[in-house]
Amino acid sequence: MDDAKEKSTQQPVDVQVPAAVVSRLSLYLRELQELVRAGQETTNSTQLGKKLGFTDAQVRKDLAYFGQFGYPGIGYRCEELIPAIKRILGTDRSWPVAVVGLGNLGRALLGYRGFDEQGFRVVAAFDVDPDQLQQDVDSVETFHLDRLSEVVKEKAIRLGIIAVPAAAAQEVATKLVDAGVDGVLNFAPVTLALPDHVSRVGVDLAIELEQLSFAVVNRPENP
Amino acid sequence: MDDAKEKSTQQPVDVQVPAAVVSRLSLYLRELQELVRAGQETTNSTQLGKKLGFTDAQVRKDLAYFGQFGYPGIGYRCEELIPAIKRILGTDRSWPVAVVGLGNLGRALLGYRGFDEQGFRVVAAFDVDPDQLQQDVDSVETFHLDRLSEVVKEKAIRLGIIAVPAAAAQEVATKLVDAGVDGVLNFAPVTLALPDHVSRVGVDLAIELEQLSFAVVNRPENP
Repeated sequence: MDDAKEKSTQQPVDVQVPAAVVSRLSLYLRELQELVRAGQETTNSTQLGKKLGFTDAQVRKDLAYFGQFGYPGIGYRCEELIPAIKRILGTDRSWPVAVVGLGNLGRALLGYRGFDEQGFRVVAAFDVDPDQLQQDVDSVETFHLDRLSEVVKEKAIRLGIIAVPAAAAQEVATKLVDAGVDGVLNFAPVTLALPDHVSRVGVDLAIELEQLSFAVVNRPENP
Repeated sequence: MDDAKEKSTQQPVDVQVPAAVVSRLSLYLRELQELVRAGQETTNSTQLGKKLGFTDAQVRKDLAYFGQFGYPGIGYRCEELIPAIKRILGTDRSWPVAVVGLGNLGRALLGYRGFDEQGFRVVAAFDVDPDQLQQDVDSVETFHLDRLSEVVKEKAIRLGIIAVPAAAAQEVATKLVDAGVDGVLNFAPVTLALPDHVSRVGVDLAIELEQLSFAVVNRPENP
């Protein structure tokens, strides 16, 4: 018997991995976490894909970007694949995050429990309106935007979430970059000019609705 | 010369199109709309892919799911490809949408201008808290959840957005389905039990942050 076959191995990540594969990794992680909560120790590509609507081949191909994780005759060991995916996604560590903008969206994000569960800790929130800074929001300390640079350094903040109106987004992005963050998640409907060394992800909520209208329009009974 | 080559043709949509392809269609649409605003009449798979970080082969393969849209020696005609993609996504029509939940997230969604631009018209918002229903929010009429069924029928609402706490999400989803909506966009971090004839898309905002941490961790200079 070949020993190598009994080892789950992770390889350095090719940065050319398509974004779609990365977002599927997140879905596999959620599914595995749910399986563990349900007391399951192992799973396989068929089961993992089934609930998510992917083929087993797709699951295997996605994971193969990052290494060899399955065992012949066993499949995937949940307690091994979960930390491996977290390492790949970078959520094996805790990320101090800042939210800029304390309007409805910013406040909704501060109350969003899903971030904490995956290792993202919102540790500061910023706004320019003194009325918004009277008190903590969902136990997160609030600061005037003028103090961004100082607070980012003090709290070792790595990621910034932009939840301000479109007109203010570029200014805020520049301030975040100058303060030294490594990545920016942008909810404002504008394309940001950022230096290459700063990662960015844009969120366009209309795309989610378009997925839904696509599904409705293209249902078999809706020709 | 083969006449057929000069025709852009659309074919019936195979419902097995991967979700990732559908979300890329949304990105192509945004890009094409921007090109038209910049005065450009034609484009090609290389240009279309470049700004989005996809290869030209990926762009051609994605579009090939839905038909033949390019012209030899010309590429894609923007004014032709835009309506074709809108037809595929179902955004060639206007969708009356309801938002349930008038907390911070619901209010942020009512103020989100990106929906209108793609044909999604939020025409009603619902909550159970009378304090939230005193007045319109961002010009959207607000109603008590008890009136959901009546208002959905009256305003011919097709899609419902769930922006309530996790504990209330299933009850709201069931009410939306009973009222007759065709699709549900769910922001609550729970998996909903819905009948097969209702389409659903779940939004997990932590996945967007995971894309960002992945990008930061896997940058060439961050081994």
